[in-house]
Amino acid sequence: MSVSAFEHPFLSGLVGDDETGKLFSAQVEIGAMLAFEAGLARAEAAFGVIPADAAERISAVCSTFQPDMAGLRQGTGRDGVVVAELVKQLRGALGGEAGKHVHFGATSQDVIDTALMIRLKKVCILFIERLAALEKAFGEIDAKFGTRALMGHTRMQAAIPITVSDRIRAWRDPLTRHRRRLDAFSENGFAVQFGGAAGTLEKLGGKAAEVREALARELLLTDAPQWQSQRDRLAEFAGILALISGSLGKLGQDVALLAEIGGEMELAGGGGSSAMAHKQNPVAAEVLVSLGRFNAVQLSGMQQAMVHEQERSGAAWTLEWLILPPMVMATGASLRLAAELAGNVRSLGK
Amino acid sequence: MSVSAFEHPFLSGLVGDDETGKLFSAQVEIGAMLAFEAGLARAEAAFGVIPADAAERISAVCSTFQPDMAGLRQGTGRDGVVVAELVKQLRGALGGEAGKHVHFGATSQDVIDTALMIRLKKVCILFIERLAALEKAFGEIDAKFGTRALMGHTRMQAAIPITVSDRIRAWRDPLTRHRRRLDAFSENGFAVQFGGAAGTLEKLGGKAAEVREALARELLLTDAPQWQSQRDRLAEFAGILALISGSLGKLGQDVALLAEIGGEMELAGGGGSSAMAHKQNPVAAEVLVSLGRFNAVQLSGMQQAMVHEQERSGAAWTLEWLILPPMVMATGASLRLAAELAGNVRSLGK
Amino acid sequence: MSVSAFEHPFLSGLVGDDETGKLFSAQVEIGAMLAFEAGLARAEAAFGVIPADAAERISAVCSTFQPDMAGLRQGTGRDGVVVAELVKQLRGALGGEAGKHVHFGATSQDVIDTALMIRLKKVCILFIERLAALEKAFGEIDAKFGTRALMGHTRMQAAIPITVSDRIRAWRDPLTRHRRRLDAFSENGFAVQFGGAAGTLEKLGGKAAEVREALARELLLTDAPQWQSQRDRLAEFAGILALISGSLGKLGQDVALLAEIGGEMELAGGGGSSAMAHKQNPVAAEVLVSLGRFNAVQLSGMQQAMVHEQERSGAAWTLEWLILPPMVMATGASLRLAAELAGNVRSLGK
Amino acid sequence: MSVSAFEHPFLSGLVGDDETGKLFSAQVEIGAMLAFEAGLARAEAAFGVIPADAAERISAVCSTFQPDMAGLRQGTGRDGVVVAELVKQLRGALGGEAGKHVHFGATSQDVIDTALMIRLKKVCILFIERLAALEKAFGEIDAKFGTRALMGHTRMQAAIPITVSDRIRAWRDPLTRHRRRLDAFSENGFAVQFGGAAGTLEKLGGKAAEVREALARELLLTDAPQWQSQRDRLAEFAGILALISGSLGKLGQDVALLAEIGGEMELAGGGGSSAMAHKQNPVAAEVLVSLGRFNAVQLSGMQQAMVHEQERSGAAWTLEWLILPPMVMATGASLRLAAELAGNVRSLGK
Repeated sequence: MSVSAFEHPFLSGLVGDDETGKLFSAQVEIGAMLAFEAGLARAEAAFGVIPADAAERISAVCSTFQPDMAGLRQGTGRDGVVVAELVKQLRGALGGEAGKHVHFGATSQDVIDTALMIRLKKVCILFIERLAALEKAFGEIDAKFGTRALMGHTRMQAAIPITVSDRIRAWRDPLTRHRRRLDAFSENGFAVQFGGAAGTLEKLGGKAAEVREALARELLLTDAPQWQSQRDRLAEFAGILALISGSLGKLGQDVALLAEIGGEMELAGGGGSSAMAHKQNPVAAEVLVSLGRFNAVQLSGMQQAMVHEQERSGAAWTLEWLILPPMVMATGASLRLAAELAGNVRSLGK
Repeated sequence: MSVSAFEHPFLSGLVGDDETGKLFSAQVEIGAMLAFEAGLARAEAAFGVIPADAAERISAVCSTFQPDMAGLRQGTGRDGVVVAELVKQLRGALGGEAGKHVHFGATSQDVIDTALMIRLKKVCILFIERLAALEKAFGEIDAKFGTRALMGHTRMQAAIPITVSDRIRAWRDPLTRHRRRLDAFSENGFAVQFGGAAGTLEKLGGKAAEVREALARELLLTDAPQWQSQRDRLAEFAGILALISGSLGKLGQDVALLAEIGGEMELAGGGGSSAMAHKQNPVAAEVLVSLGRFNAVQLSGMQQAMVHEQERSGAAWTLEWLILPPMVMATGASLRLAAELAGNVRSLGK
Repeated sequence: MSVSAFEHPFLSGLVGDDETGKLFSAQVEIGAMLAFEAGLARAEAAFGVIPADAAERISAVCSTFQPDMAGLRQGTGRDGVVVAELVKQLRGALGGEAGKHVHFGATSQDVIDTALMIRLKKVCILFIERLAALEKAFGEIDAKFGTRALMGHTRMQAAIPITVSDRIRAWRDPLTRHRRRLDAFSENGFAVQFGGAAGTLEKLGGKAAEVREALARELLLTDAPQWQSQRDRLAEFAGILALISGSLGKLGQDVALLAEIGGEMELAGGGGSSAMAHKQNPVAAEVLVSLGRFNAVQLSGMQQAMVHEQERSGAAWTLEWLILPPMVMATGASLRLAAELAGNVRSLGK
Repeated sequence: MSVSAFEHPFLSGLVGDDETGKLFSAQVEIGAMLAFEAGLARAEAAFGVIPADAAERISAVCSTFQPDMAGLRQGTGRDGVVVAELVKQLRGALGGEAGKHVHFGATSQDVIDTALMIRLKKVCILFIERLAALEKAFGEIDAKFGTRALMGHTRMQAAIPITVSDRIRAWRDPLTRHRRRLDAFSENGFAVQFGGAAGTLEKLGGKAAEVREALARELLLTDAPQWQSQRDRLAEFAGILALISGSLGKLGQDVALLAEIGGEMELAGGGGSSAMAHKQNPVAAEVLVSLGRFNAVQLSGMQQAMVHEQERSGAAWTLEWLILPPMVMATGASLRLAAELAGNVRSLGK
């Protein structure tokens, strides 16, 4: 199928991003869920909640377990979430004692949300690197062309001359702030989810806090009380994604306008036209605008999902699943295209 | 990859819809583009714009041509749209004379937009059928349980008793109106796109109108002047999709609340919980809410894409590609889940 | 206060629209509610539901009644809707028998929704007129300059020359379709709301249908079964508003780009700059873009409000109150500014 | 007029907030603009850019100047922004030398954006206080009822019992994080805007940085290079507003569901019904949901406005004016209603 342009057989050539996409493959997703189950078993064994040998076996099996995907699909359709079926299959593979102890005290949401956080943390690291690289690339363009003149435009009209440096600052400064936003978020935004059936960890008794803390450490996530119905961290992270692609949308719009007005920018690359062989189109610039507007739209959905009724809302939660991965991809593609665009600048200003 | 829940290896068990998805497969998409090229060749031959034997050969080759997908992906990344590369590959397959005459007078947007309209028309027929089936299903529930009492709720509080018929009317009447909206849209909404490089069909000379009319007839679409930068039909169609999934979201919310309050509805099916074996979750009902809210969010993006600069906006156009297919899928999945839900009603009212 | 730019002491000079605004004044709003109560009384009297002299008195008093606004404000804060307090005040003014019979069988939502429909119908008539005038204005520009050349632009780049007529068609054709959409909607979209406490008109007994039909006739609205939780008509109407302002946003974007590129368009008017006295800004064109994007955003909220739980959702209903009036205003302002812009075209094309 | 429910004669009783509204009155807005002009004059005089006595006179006149509002309205319609006309009127009032020196080196955007920042900073302080008060109120409810049982609900179904404390944590913890987000934003988010015609402060020569720094100090804002086309700070702030109202929307939804299920919560207050005298409606709870969804919708518009073309986009900027003040109001109203709701809790849990 080809519903999503981000993974479409040919549209992904335009708006895809392999590196980001890999972090959201089903395989990596299941791997993160199994990492949760393994980490949980080890954490619970460390505090005597489950036997040490059960934890060892769970850990070992989780590191290689390959679920039956058709079964997962069917189970997700039936239960609204993949975890019950995944745990059932995992129990089958574990057998005996270990099978009884896996997933102890946890609920589906613990697995799904934690597995998401594990992947978002990697996304965050990737995007921080890309932002830094982009800042550097603009720094180099600035070093080359910064003192040249560029016609400043306000309200879509030529105003007074500015320098290339002035314009580049408007492109680069927000990227530095976005990088810092991701840095600040990383401090405690990627929080483990562990609350059990209704968030109370009722099966863990007095050991709940220690086990959760150990689980967080196992998974390199921040320890935090369960946030099953508190979706503000995810909405905040999505907001940073939209800020990034929004600023890159502004870059794209500016480049498209520079190309249209002509004479001030020379770009390598640029797409051909099926009707006009002579024409060079600033494709990447336009797509940056599309992706910026796309994320602007999607963010609204992440915010709607904050109205999360009671201890767990299937409706609000499923809405996140529909919205957040495409936002991550759009941001990744934005960063990829912006880097491409920066790399294609042959000349800027006069 | 697994970015889109609609085509995700296991989430598609929950929010996918095979029948709708098929209409948006890359194969069907390319098939529709080739149908455009074949139809155009025949229409142009009929008016002496290209030779009849070229048209014949184009028609024949298009019916079996299998493009090199890796090449399409690369071409799309380069040109911002797949058509230049597709036509180049097609020309290679056609060779000689026919290769010179294929795609004559057309531009990428003609191919992409017309191929979209071909598929949306099929989507429309499918959704009309599903709406009718759903109306029938609710009619049957009404026949069985309509005279029973149900507690009416206003502002989330028990108000006064109503009948099951009263509630079913609130679910079914909008579906009838949506079906009529699709019917009305079908009358002339699925319009051929044919304008050439900048919308003027400048290469067709005095034969432009006849060729376009013949092309529309070939493709069973409405004849209309090119609408390359007039995206209101697409935004209107997307609006109907959002109305459908919005009404089904209301249905889903009502069923979830009926399940919560208890005692007035009995449903077969319902998902299990990984933490609480005894619990039955109204999964389909909740997902209807998610999909309704999802489309509500997306519609905003289709509207943003109406601000389509000049003769053709790469930015606005690409935004549609990111937004419309998921909206179609969400609506298809909504209709599928609503039918499932209606089929699972064992008892309603007291 | 000055929260809304549409009614802000000075920003309304830019984005306001007196004519549209008048249709949404509190006075007109209350007038429409009183028209409902008067019409209901007459309709009920006609079928013997309430005494004829009570209806006469209600009718007479409603035509001049001035409620205590501070009381209405307080009542709305308490009850979530103004009607209980308004009816209480009205009962006070009516006294005795008539006071007992006013609002018989009706509920707050009947009053609010019907009063909204009465005003939206007037909005619709106004917008149809404005669209027709705009089409005419573009027709005149076309008659003057249509045969001149204009550089066609695709993907923000000069493509091939088109005529001024070609461009004007892209601006005018959608307006014609929007006018037809409003016409089609008018046929039965402006429906009376009358359902009573939970939509069943339980107090009207066998006379419910006749009274509702008479009420609709009194108010020049379409008769239809209560649609208290079926908000598709309102979302559809909001969709048409967004289509209108979306197309005008495209017009604005095009004019701003024409102004920027220069040489092809001469406009009278245009705003000054506080920093650069020589500069002429295409203010109206830019604001058309803002308003188009504004409505694109808002439409999403009207769609969210379709998820209307049970017989009446306070949450979804209140959301409409926050969203729809500004959408109406934005559309009115768009049409006003587009007319201004069209009137300012001194020259187009070369 | 009564377009905006936030300042509507009677709807403001429901969704208004006087304290927040005051910070957005036209008078306060103009006051902040005049504070900019006065602060600028003093800063420029301190570095010898304008004469000290001119600065003194500007400062004195700005502290009492009352502009002609009708003129401002007309000027805004003409220029797209109020500043040219305001400065013209101010020059008239200043006369002679001082009139020549006012607004020196500045542009409209400097005045508007800085005046916005001045007011948003006050909004931020108010909201931090309200969040703290709300956290305290929930702390008190927790102290009273925290150990009682409450039925936990997941996926809209009764799951297992939790404590009142567990639920309150889900309401309060996000508020603490939001307060910290506002605190963190305050550190350097409220940045002075000062760039001149195209952002280069070209008239200030070598004294640009010092003057800007002094201006920031005068206005108690953060000093930062001009950010005329970098709108990320505003979008980020709007994001925090949406997070706040989103979490309060979750609170509202929970309270409405508690009220519906019954037996676990007792609330003072609650609205009456015009049709059913016996019914108590959880009005504030529902409105919290509406406001949460409203801001979720609006945030998308602030994000769209990040695609800010070139040195200054009239279109994107005007879009902010339409969107941000209502978001501020919706957040203020949310906080007001949540406090009211918390104050009305008579009993929670069993």
